[in-house]
Amino acid sequence: MKSLAVLGSTGSIGVTTLDVVARFADRFRVVALAAGRNVERLAEQVRQFEPALVATGDEAGAEALRAAVPDYRGEILVGIDGITRVATAAGADLVISALVGALGLGPTLAAIEAGKDVALANKEVLVVAGELVQAAAKRRGVNVFPIDSEHNAIYQAMQGHRRSDVRRVILTASGGPFLRTSLADLHVATPEQALRHPTWKMGAKITIDSSTLMNKGLEVIEAHWLFDLPPEQIDVVIHPQSIVHSMVEYVDGSVIAQLGIPDMAVPISFILAYPERLPLDHLPSLNLVEAGRLEFLAPDLERFPCLGLAYDALRARGSVPAVLNAANEVLVESFLNRTIGYLDIPRIARAVVERHGGISEPTLEALLAADAWARDAARSLAASPAEARA
Amino acid sequence: MKSLAVLGSTGSIGVTTLDVVARFADRFRVVALAAGRNVERLAEQVRQFEPALVATGDEAGAEALRAAVPDYRGEILVGIDGITRVATAAGADLVISALVGALGLGPTLAAIEAGKDVALANKEVLVVAGELVQAAAKRRGVNVFPIDSEHNAIYQAMQGHRRSDVRRVILTASGGPFLRTSLADLHVATPEQALRHPTWKMGAKITIDSSTLMNKGLEVIEAHWLFDLPPEQIDVVIHPQSIVHSMVEYVDGSVIAQLGIPDMAVPISFILAYPERLPLDHLPSLNLVEAGRLEFLAPDLERFPCLGLAYDALRARGSVPAVLNAANEVLVESFLNRTIGYLDIPRIARAVVERHGGISEPTLEALLAADAWARDAARSLAASPAEARA
Repeated sequence: MKSLAVLGSTGSIGVTTLDVVARFADRFRVVALAAGRNVERLAEQVRQFEPALVATGDEAGAEALRAAVPDYRGEILVGIDGITRVATAAGADLVISALVGALGLGPTLAAIEAGKDVALANKEVLVVAGELVQAAAKRRGVNVFPIDSEHNAIYQAMQGHRRSDVRRVILTASGGPFLRTSLADLHVATPEQALRHPTWKMGAKITIDSSTLMNKGLEVIEAHWLFDLPPEQIDVVIHPQSIVHSMVEYVDGSVIAQLGIPDMAVPISFILAYPERLPLDHLPSLNLVEAGRLEFLAPDLERFPCLGLAYDALRARGSVPAVLNAANEVLVESFLNRTIGYLDIPRIARAVVERHGGISEPTLEALLAADAWARDAARSLAASPAEARA
Repeated sequence: MKSLAVLGSTGSIGVTTLDVVARFADRFRVVALAAGRNVERLAEQVRQFEPALVATGDEAGAEALRAAVPDYRGEILVGIDGITRVATAAGADLVISALVGALGLGPTLAAIEAGKDVALANKEVLVVAGELVQAAAKRRGVNVFPIDSEHNAIYQAMQGHRRSDVRRVILTASGGPFLRTSLADLHVATPEQALRHPTWKMGAKITIDSSTLMNKGLEVIEAHWLFDLPPEQIDVVIHPQSIVHSMVEYVDGSVIAQLGIPDMAVPISFILAYPERLPLDHLPSLNLVEAGRLEFLAPDLERFPCLGLAYDALRARGSVPAVLNAANEVLVESFLNRTIGYLDIPRIARAVVERHGGISEPTLEALLAADAWARDAARSLAASPAEARA
C-alpha cells in the first residue's frame, strides 16, 4: 500500500492520478490533497478518498469546502502554508507535484526536504530551481520521478540500461498547429489558431507554449535537471503524430523509444506503481497499423525561436531559465489577451533575458525575485512592444 | 576479459562478431573458432585471433588450413566432432552460435550442456528444438541470448521491466520486395525478383524467406522459445523501413521499441558486452529526420501464407515446426533452381506438414528424423508439384 499526497488534485494531472488510484484502490491510499479554486471537485475527492489533510487556496475556499463536506473529520488548511503541510504530510510516501506555475516550487522543495519521493508534473519546479531541487533530492536521498510524457518516456527508456552508456536523449515535439505555417503567417497568428493543438488536450498556457516550441524548450531544461545531461546531449525532433513520446540513444547506436496512446494515465500509473506496471485495461492498445505512419522533422529555429532561447537559457544557467520562464508566462497571457502579436512572445522574451543581468548559483529567494522582475519587465515591454525591438 | 567460441566464424554474423572483438581487443579473447568451407578467411582469423582450437568442415579443409597457417600451434579439428569441441572449448564463457541450418543444433546443445552461455544467431536451433534447448538451458542455468535483430530488440526492450508486465511482443518485418505485389504477380515471381531485399543484405535462403514472410514466421517460433510467450502474445507488423527492429507492449499500454540502423554489429555487440554497451563510434547514428517516415502495415496472410503456416506449426508444437522448417529449406532451394514456382513454397510446405503425423515431446533423434523425412517429402512433392494440390 503506497500513501500519496496530491498537490493540484483538481487539475488535469491530479484528476487522472486519482482516477488511477480509484481503479487500483487496494494499492494506494490518499493521505492529503491540495487544490486551488475548484472547491466543488475537491469536495468530491475528499468524500471519495477521505484524506487526513486537505488544503485550498484561500479561506473562502476552505469555508465552501467545510460546507460541502460537513461530515469530513480531517484537517482543512489554507494557502501556501496549508499546501506545504499537504506536501509534507505524515505518512505520505510519494508527493504528486501537479500545481500549475511557480506556486508549486516551495511545497515541492518542502516535500523533498521532508524526505519524500516526488512525482513531478510541474515543469516550473525544475525550470526555475532545478539546481536547488536536485541538490536537495541528492542530500535527502529521495527520487524525483518525471510524469511529463516526454520525460517519463525517457525514464522508461533508461530502465535497465547503464546511464554511462547514454549518448543522447531525443525529446519529441508534436510541432503544434503551426508546424507548416510560414513566418509571414505566424506574424498574424491568432490565439484561436494557436490553441488548436493537433494531438494533446491541455490548458491554454501549455497549448500556446506547444505552438511556439517554448514548451519543448522548457522540457529541454527539465531533461537537463532530471537526467543530469548537458544541453548537447539533449535533442529535439518534431514528430507530428505524438506516438513516440521520446527516445534515448545509447553509445552502441541503439535507440530505445517509448510509444503509446496520448493518455496521461500511462506515465502517471508508471510512476505511481514504479517499479511495477498497472494493467490499464480500460485504455485502447496502441495500434500502429491504424496510426499508419510516424514522421520526424527537424525543428525550425527561425520560425520557432523560443526553442533556441531555452537552449541559450540552459547554457547561461543560474537565474536565466527562471527569467525566460516568467517572461514567457506573462507574454503568453498578453498574446491570449491580444495585447501583443504571436511573434512578440519570443521577441520580448529575448529582450527581457538580455536586460537581466543573470545571477549565478542563486538562492530560492533570488530566483523568485528574478522571476518577479522578469514578469514586470515583460509586462512593461508588452505594453509597448515596439520598445522590445530597439 | 570475456572468452568467446565462435561457431560459423566465416559467415556474415561470425565476421561481424570478430570485427567487434577486434575493435575492443582489451575486452574479449577468442579461444575457439569453427567454420565450414571458407578456409582462406578462417586462416586469416586464426592468424589474427590465435585461438587455442579451430575446426573446419572436413579433412581437406583442415589440410588447407594447416598449409595456410604453418606456424599455428593450436589444435585443428574436423567435422561435427570438431565443431562440438569448439562449442565446448575449455575457458569459453560465451559461445556464438552462427552456423547455418540444422548443423548448428548439436554443437549448440553441447555448449549448453557444458554450462556455457550461448549467443544465438542460428534460427533453426530454436525452431527445430526449442523445447529441448530451453529445457537444457534451464537445467544448466545458462543464458540463451538472441542475436537476431528482432529478438535482440525485444530483449533490449525487456531490460529493466518485469516479464510479468508484458502484454505482447511485436516483431517487425520489412515486408520484403513483394510487399505491394498482387497475388497474380506472385504466381509468376522469379528468384531475381525475390532476392531484391529492400533493407538488409543477407544470404539467398533468408532473403527468400523474408519475401515469403516464412522468415518472420520462424522468428515467431523463435520468440516463443526465447521469451516463453504463447502465440497469441506474439504479433507481427510490416514496417518497410526496418528502423524499428521490434517492440514490447506492457500491460499499461506503454510500448518500448528498439530502433537503429540496419547493422548487425549493434545486436552482436549488445550481447557480447552484456550488460554493458560498447561505443560503436564507427557506425553512423540513426537519423530519424533523414529516414523521414516510419510506416506500419498489417501482414497479408492471403498473399503470404507462410506466416500463417508458422503460427499453425507453433500451435501444433512437437515436431511440426521442425518439419515446416525442413520442408521450407528444400522448397526455397527448388524455387531458386526454378523447379517450382514462388507460391509452390507455401503450398507444398503445407502439404508436407499435413502428411506429417506429428510427434509430441520428441527427442533430438526424433526431431532430426522428422527433419529428414520432411526434406524427402518436400523433394518428392517439388518434383511433381501438381500432387501437392491434390
